[in-house]
Amino acid sequence: MRKHNFCAGPAALPTAVLERARDELLDYQGRGLSVMEMSHRSAAYIAIAEKAEADLRELLAVPANYRVLFTQGGATQQFAAVPYNLLGPGGRANFVNTGIWSRKAIGEAIHLFGDVHVAASSEPGGHLAVPRPEELMLSDDAAYLHYTTNETIGGLAFDYIPEARRPDGSEAPLVCDMSSSILSGPLDVSRFGVIYAGAQKNIGPAGLVVVIVRDDLLDRARQDMPSLFGYQALSEAGSMINTPATYSWYLAGLVFEWLKDEVGGLAAMEAINARKAQRLYGAIDASDFYSNPITIPNRSRMNVPFVLSDARLDAPFLAEAEAAGLLNLQGHRSVGGMRASLYNAVPEAAVEALVDFMADFEKRRG
Amino acid sequence: MRKHNFCAGPAALPTAVLERARDELLDYQGRGLSVMEMSHRSAAYIAIAEKAEADLRELLAVPANYRVLFTQGGATQQFAAVPYNLLGPGGRANFVNTGIWSRKAIGEAIHLFGDVHVAASSEPGGHLAVPRPEELMLSDDAAYLHYTTNETIGGLAFDYIPEARRPDGSEAPLVCDMSSSILSGPLDVSRFGVIYAGAQKNIGPAGLVVVIVRDDLLDRARQDMPSLFGYQALSEAGSMINTPATYSWYLAGLVFEWLKDEVGGLAAMEAINARKAQRLYGAIDASDFYSNPITIPNRSRMNVPFVLSDARLDAPFLAEAEAAGLLNLQGHRSVGGMRASLYNAVPEAAVEALVDFMADFEKRRG
Repeated sequence: MRKHNFCAGPAALPTAVLERARDELLDYQGRGLSVMEMSHRSAAYIAIAEKAEADLRELLAVPANYRVLFTQGGATQQFAAVPYNLLGPGGRANFVNTGIWSRKAIGEAIHLFGDVHVAASSEPGGHLAVPRPEELMLSDDAAYLHYTTNETIGGLAFDYIPEARRPDGSEAPLVCDMSSSILSGPLDVSRFGVIYAGAQKNIGPAGLVVVIVRDDLLDRARQDMPSLFGYQALSEAGSMINTPATYSWYLAGLVFEWLKDEVGGLAAMEAINARKAQRLYGAIDASDFYSNPITIPNRSRMNVPFVLSDARLDAPFLAEAEAAGLLNLQGHRSVGGMRASLYNAVPEAAVEALVDFMADFEKRRG
Repeated sequence: MRKHNFCAGPAALPTAVLERARDELLDYQGRGLSVMEMSHRSAAYIAIAEKAEADLRELLAVPANYRVLFTQGGATQQFAAVPYNLLGPGGRANFVNTGIWSRKAIGEAIHLFGDVHVAASSEPGGHLAVPRPEELMLSDDAAYLHYTTNETIGGLAFDYIPEARRPDGSEAPLVCDMSSSILSGPLDVSRFGVIYAGAQKNIGPAGLVVVIVRDDLLDRARQDMPSLFGYQALSEAGSMINTPATYSWYLAGLVFEWLKDEVGGLAAMEAINARKAQRLYGAIDASDFYSNPITIPNRSRMNVPFVLSDARLDAPFLAEAEAAGLLNLQGHRSVGGMRASLYNAVPEAAVEALVDFMADFEKRRG
């Protein structure tokens, strides 16, 4: 029996997707072999790959001048790939720092290129609110501005799309790590230069990363980078410079189909996600026993961290939750407390069950 | 119904492995979630990952002073990772060139570092035999010697493990791309500095790469490389610098269990593979209609390319083979002709069916 899984990632996948993957696992559509066992150059696999891209483009309304890449190494590999591809001579990477994942992206750019500019940071305020638009101060030499839509550990999310204006008024490409927010609702892709997202939250299994890049940004890559990192080369090869993560790509395609055909698209998905988050934050705010410190407009809909008023009750809370079929509610090891991740595949019934359990636990132990 | 799949990669997986994956896909051992949906830091997943490594170590008798890494990007990413990790100041990468995959590894090293030394090449002879041991001429500054055990496109395989001696008699680390031969039989890992293998032939699904590295080689990496490429960092993090390809790692573990428990280990696997190859090459050599040009001791047991005496019969051969349930026999697009890949998961019955079909086709059309 499937339980309610609030894991921050690798995260829950839609049960309907897993059922279909199971049914097709040994024999894909009567072809006598698994998708895992197909040549990535075969007509059958190319059809799977192209359908996945077409469905993703449809869901996100990706404009024609953007390339969609399916590559590997997670968002962490993109922390390196982005500067390799976009920095260009004399340019500097600009960042907004809103927490642990922003800092990892910053760290890799420093590791490789020695210098970055932090255009704004929520660190002085303890990452309880994202910087306001007027606080963004790009450098003159900004090659791009990078930010993280949703910090999965802190539960902090942008409520707006930043403008990347250099001091002289010119616009720098906007680059965004959307690993934990992509596909949670509609998106204006045209505002971005590069969007990337590790798959293991709202897309599919870990080991796949989706990159969406505007085609005028393909010409500024450094030469001294691993060939597999090049957006231009990946684009020209249809993401098949070498064998891609074929099965993960297929599963991502099943998730895209589920979003289109079962959920009804990203506006419908956003409405469901809004209800789920509202229900859980509402329960937290109505209680003196549970709390979440994030400024309300910047609360993440995908990751809801909360603490109990008495940390000695953390262990019994987690044990009883697990016994009640509510899995993976422990907060990230770096911050402790609780965290409920409410990605697309987490149904409203799971949130109801969690809220009921929390009320019951508070009554008994609070 | 499952058909006989001779794909060169992503290749056939054992039916028993796929059945188990199917049965566990929605609910892993009663835990209420899929392996795909588990945190890579959870106790349940760590147990899966550690069991896979332990089984691989047992199968290959990996000595204690070697680290085993499970990473991403395929062998192609290792074409870059190896020089980043091993080149060191003043060193030069040395290669044996035996065909397309060797040349790709050489190409990436040249791309990143400008200069390599080719210690021996079978190119002048058209890659019909691997260089003999006495032909290997390393450079004085050889940081390592890289070779490819098995060229999947040419069907050319080493019948010995090279010695990597510099002109002054000192030994350089031996680095080997074993993507298409690993686990096909027992191996003396202690002869190697680094072994790497893309998973999609004998290990599991595409998107995973296994690296086995001797621990005295962990200290010579360049600093200016993507963090995820560092063998030392990967080793310290248990291959979890970031979220690994968790499901592929799990499937690899199922393949390792199958090799241990169903096949009976790598000596047993090697005997089966020898019989399969003998059966097919025997049929080819006994016919005037089919031919394979490779010098007998260097014929690959994993990939058997062959041509028909009349290339106009290629298309009917492939069409009739497919109708007979014999899939993916087309040669690589760069060379044409036929290729039957006989990886571990291809059963002897598949080879019997192929040989029978070939005899029948020759009788009717030859």
